[in-house]
Amino acid sequence: MDLIERVRAKETRAIARALTLVENGDGAFLNALDAEYARLPQPARIGITGPPGSGKSTLTSALIGVLRKQAKRVGVVAVDPSSPFSGGALLGDRLRMSAHTLDEGVFVRSMASRGSFGGLAIGCEDACDVLALAVFDPVIVETVGVGQSEVDIARLADTTVVVLTPGAGDSVQALKAGIMEIADVVAINKADRDGAERLEEDIKEAQELRNAPWRAPIVRTVATENRGASELLAAIENHRVYLASNKLLNGVRAQRAEARLMDLAAAGLIEALRRGPAFQAAREAVQRGELSPRAAVNKLLNTTRF
Amino acid sequence: MDLIERVRAKETRAIARALTLVENGDGAFLNALDAEYARLPQPARIGITGPPGSGKSTLTSALIGVLRKQAKRVGVVAVDPSSPFSGGALLGDRLRMSAHTLDEGVFVRSMASRGSFGGLAIGCEDACDVLALAVFDPVIVETVGVGQSEVDIARLADTTVVVLTPGAGDSVQALKAGIMEIADVVAINKADRDGAERLEEDIKEAQELRNAPWRAPIVRTVATENRGASELLAAIENHRVYLASNKLLNGVRAQRAEARLMDLAAAGLIEALRRGPAFQAAREAVQRGELSPRAAVNKLLNTTRF
Repeated sequence: MDLIERVRAKETRAIARALTLVENGDGAFLNALDAEYARLPQPARIGITGPPGSGKSTLTSALIGVLRKQAKRVGVVAVDPSSPFSGGALLGDRLRMSAHTLDEGVFVRSMASRGSFGGLAIGCEDACDVLALAVFDPVIVETVGVGQSEVDIARLADTTVVVLTPGAGDSVQALKAGIMEIADVVAINKADRDGAERLEEDIKEAQELRNAPWRAPIVRTVATENRGASELLAAIENHRVYLASNKLLNGVRAQRAEARLMDLAAAGLIEALRRGPAFQAAREAVQRGELSPRAAVNKLLNTTRF
Repeated sequence: MDLIERVRAKETRAIARALTLVENGDGAFLNALDAEYARLPQPARIGITGPPGSGKSTLTSALIGVLRKQAKRVGVVAVDPSSPFSGGALLGDRLRMSAHTLDEGVFVRSMASRGSFGGLAIGCEDACDVLALAVFDPVIVETVGVGQSEVDIARLADTTVVVLTPGAGDSVQALKAGIMEIADVVAINKADRDGAERLEEDIKEAQELRNAPWRAPIVRTVATENRGASELLAAIENHRVYLASNKLLNGVRAQRAEARLMDLAAAGLIEALRRGPAFQAAREAVQRGELSPRAAVNKLLNTTRF
């Protein structure tokens, strides 16, 4: 039986193998997976993001616990933005989620980002397709909130949960910097700490300024004690009902397909360019000092035909 | 007198204006700047990177103090990776560097990253060219160490200083994750804290495993008290002498020109693609559900000619 069929049959080892092929960018497997595109199940996609130390993974683990009681099969892609300075968080994350490691209804995979040019988003979409094929629903995408990743995760999920904590100066920054724009649900984690009330007021104030059609509900959680996880899941499901009843879910997916098209086109073009003779000529002209990089690129673009 | 000439004449307002045009991606100015490419001065480029909270900006400020005593004109580009969660650091950074704001021999500019696809590196290179034209030497590029930015900064500088602090768990992670590979000089900042000795031993151990031709010297600093700044500058200058005496400086610059060519080519191609009819057709086929994003891209790439 081929790998695609074994993933569809929910074989754990096949799923792990498929995700490794995805992560390695294996062309043959990616094409086989792509042939399933139109028939793939469409699981709910939940994004979980927030600053380092906000307890995203513990909260994800608590959510998994609630979902398992409902007999849901849960797939998780934990995206590591590959910073040497944030590498520790995800390692810890994986350990904290290990309560679920012997449960066949849960599959957790960490993915490192490969270089720039949309590689992380491409790999994550492919991994989500593998988990969809293996009939996991929901699929949770967890990202450490650094750099461009909050925006990227908002693109990858139907419902994005932003996790904030009281007292962290980060939270105020996050509010100011427009993090609310990507939040469909806000979790105030470590809500037993001082400052939860204040943080909630700040968030509400930021929301009042926005006047958006959907106001993100705020849920207080203490993930380490599993407190608030059911309420958080209910809020996530409410957002999904809102999307569905307003016929917005197809729009969300269409936007995702378009972003994926753009990422794949960019990555493919760059790869093709790098291999082609025009780029080699440009490279040599720059190295000989005959052209500046910008002049060489302008020349290159003049001869490119789409 | 045109803007290029006014920048060359070191006019502060002209430099500020030129950097704004660079940040806005103004085509006319970028082409005018590019026409100067072959004639630009080649200032020493110093990269300063490290985790949030390591005191990079205070250290940069201390370095500026030493350089000013040598009557050097110092340009700084502080790169903000634009995360809502790290936005606070750079704001603070700018304030800490304000001791030099009334000094015409110092120019500090913060740059936010615009989207993905190499935009940050492109803008930073252009800003460095403006500062070179204005006869600043050295030019310091400071980045908060998140995501891809450490690797990017290593590309943008002749000499990369990695700033670590004792006791931060980050440091050990940084060592494990291969941050040493981009360090030409290591600064142990806040070296008056417990654990400086231990951190230095850990770094040395990591270095022994590498067996690289250049072993990054380790300098202890207490940037808030200006301690170690002269020694750090001496270490940076030693690295430059090493590059020059081994005829490596041209290679470093050639690599930078090639990376810049690649970034500009990628950004230009993506922009041209987005405007072209083939991409629109691909987009519509995906939206109608006729093609998967990957299949649409494969088709698109078949008709692209470089």
